[in-house]
Amino acid sequence: MMGGRPVAVVGAGMIPFGELFEQSYEEMIVGAYRECLGSVDKGIDEDRLEAAWLGTCAGGLIRQEIVTGAALAEPIRFFPRPVTRIENACCTGSDAVRNAAFAVAAGIYDVVLVVGAEKMRDVPSRDSLIRQTSVLFHEWWAPRGATAPNRFGQFATAHMEAFGTEREHMAMIAEKNHHHGALNPHSFFRREVSCEQALAAPIISWPLGLLDCCPTTDGAAAIVLASADVADQFSDNPIYMYGSGLATDPLISPWKRDFTAFEATTTAANAAYAMAGIEASDVDLAEVHDCFTITELITWEDLGFCEKGKGKDWIEQGGPKLGGEKPVNTSGGLKAKGHPIGATGVSQVVELWEQLRGEAGERQVEGARIGLTHNMGGIGTVVLVNIFGSTPTPETGR
Amino acid sequence: MMGGRPVAVVGAGMIPFGELFEQSYEEMIVGAYRECLGSVDKGIDEDRLEAAWLGTCAGGLIRQEIVTGAALAEPIRFFPRPVTRIENACCTGSDAVRNAAFAVAAGIYDVVLVVGAEKMRDVPSRDSLIRQTSVLFHEWWAPRGATAPNRFGQFATAHMEAFGTEREHMAMIAEKNHHHGALNPHSFFRREVSCEQALAAPIISWPLGLLDCCPTTDGAAAIVLASADVADQFSDNPIYMYGSGLATDPLISPWKRDFTAFEATTTAANAAYAMAGIEASDVDLAEVHDCFTITELITWEDLGFCEKGKGKDWIEQGGPKLGGEKPVNTSGGLKAKGHPIGATGVSQVVELWEQLRGEAGERQVEGARIGLTHNMGGIGTVVLVNIFGSTPTPETGR
Repeated sequence: MMGGRPVAVVGAGMIPFGELFEQSYEEMIVGAYRECLGSVDKGIDEDRLEAAWLGTCAGGLIRQEIVTGAALAEPIRFFPRPVTRIENACCTGSDAVRNAAFAVAAGIYDVVLVVGAEKMRDVPSRDSLIRQTSVLFHEWWAPRGATAPNRFGQFATAHMEAFGTEREHMAMIAEKNHHHGALNPHSFFRREVSCEQALAAPIISWPLGLLDCCPTTDGAAAIVLASADVADQFSDNPIYMYGSGLATDPLISPWKRDFTAFEATTTAANAAYAMAGIEASDVDLAEVHDCFTITELITWEDLGFCEKGKGKDWIEQGGPKLGGEKPVNTSGGLKAKGHPIGATGVSQVVELWEQLRGEAGERQVEGARIGLTHNMGGIGTVVLVNIFGSTPTPETGR
Repeated sequence: MMGGRPVAVVGAGMIPFGELFEQSYEEMIVGAYRECLGSVDKGIDEDRLEAAWLGTCAGGLIRQEIVTGAALAEPIRFFPRPVTRIENACCTGSDAVRNAAFAVAAGIYDVVLVVGAEKMRDVPSRDSLIRQTSVLFHEWWAPRGATAPNRFGQFATAHMEAFGTEREHMAMIAEKNHHHGALNPHSFFRREVSCEQALAAPIISWPLGLLDCCPTTDGAAAIVLASADVADQFSDNPIYMYGSGLATDPLISPWKRDFTAFEATTTAANAAYAMAGIEASDVDLAEVHDCFTITELITWEDLGFCEKGKGKDWIEQGGPKLGGEKPVNTSGGLKAKGHPIGATGVSQVVELWEQLRGEAGERQVEGARIGLTHNMGGIGTVVLVNIFGSTPTPETGR
């Protein structure tokens, strides 16, 4: 369990992700905040929120600007309360959740807000995510032109060589996540994509085609964390945070020991499992970082959902599909729901909030009790795993 | 007291701040880390450090790049351990200390590392701090040309008009902090500046002259925080963290209610005093955010070190000078020691570490038991106050 006091989630909401030219950064934050407040079963006086954490890469990633906690405090009129701003690449939102949870666990605050937000579509392509991934910090000496698709493509070709994984298996992940996303009103892409379409899409960086890549996206998400002992003031049906693990690994390709696994995922997951007192087999569903289809496939293996090298078999068996053994990315994932970087990790908790409360409608995973979120920043450089459940302590049946 | 478990500082070190063209960002981090490890009385096995927080504005502030926790993990070979990266304008370093302390207080980790680092001199002037302050996030609609000296200059003229503060009082602060800095081997400027010199310096933005402004600086600092119950494994003479307060206030000048005070300083200080169970009068010495001399003068008043409007009298009486009632910025402050943004808040703890342990040499404040650090980001937009002391709980004598 988390050290200190148990921590609950008593509210979670988000705006539909997408290409939101009609909404400013501030409007997205206000929208997610209002959705979050509206999700609190018994209602919540805004003054009960004692502090906040903002997860956003705006500034470093998007514009060369200084971003403070005031970027959150201003649109939601949160002054003079404390706001910490976290930036940790694609783990940004999940790390905001983690640090906020620690403050509640420590007894510093009883009720806190976490917001993740990113405006990514309002920039010229020279400032796009694709361009940014070639200027990752400390990467100046790396070969120019190295972008995310070709960095992750290296993992795809290595995995194909080592284990016989084929482009068809990656296409099945695109099909799965687009199917899930089509069922999710919060999803950027609400349309089915077939394996055939995915395989026929233009190649971006071999073996990854356009439909193996997640989109750049605008969006925001928000959750309210509370000490478990006050959670019943807000909800008869909160969910609980069981554990959190963060791990680091070298950014630079020449320093990777293995191109068929992301070591930091296993390190972070093991830390989170230990804190939660569970095993991988206890997880009922997961939201994982499918920035590319191959990333999701490798992540199943690294999280222990299936054996290393057996991802191809697991997707063939339907394991990660809705109705399967352990549904993954029922929200549509980064692939279909979208990937507004700072918002992603927070939005994953929104999906678990709905699933673990049995409110996910057509996407509902039957009997979902324990869920996991997973984010990866850089090329497996920072990985964060958070674990949540529907009961105050994990009921694993073991 | 901090919620959860009591938190101690068991090591603190920094490299001398300055114009460090000969050191890379990574070399500065390694230097501060080594100084910090070397300061641990009984030595420390590096493997005891379970997690880290990196405070840096690099990326958003300096280069348009993504910065992750790996920016710290790489140079000190910290892989695969967790590193959170915090950015909160000039509160960045202090907020890294705050979040790290919460994680220890929560019982998540027993021993953690906090590093603050900034490389600010290796950029063309178009990317300088002066330029950056005119592109603070959400400031795009503010008048172009608004820079830190003229934003803080507004507070100076308002304070002069309201309370009769004169340029001479600001010059006395420059003289004081340069005198302190001349005694500090970690200081960027180790030379005296007289009131006459400060008054004769070229005006940057009335009434602030060149010697009213802190320099842009390269530097890094590091501390080790530990649960108080394991602190004796590392030191017979640790210092303790009593409290922390963070507050926000609108960035935009038209939304300020008062130009003679920074409201967020009072809010943050009151939160920190309450958590620590102390009053302003219990503070023996403080490191405060003298980005401009007027900022320090107003901060004394906002922290409760003297009455509002009486800062001019307090400096005339020598209150904040070494040997005075409550010495402020014995390190030299941002003004003389320098202001590498992400490092500043961490380096303030290094000064308190030396002072509260009685190891500050010529700068020693006699009988120092309780010390405070204060950082301000933006124009009073985010303010963070951390409080430390030489005994496990505050001995205020009340």
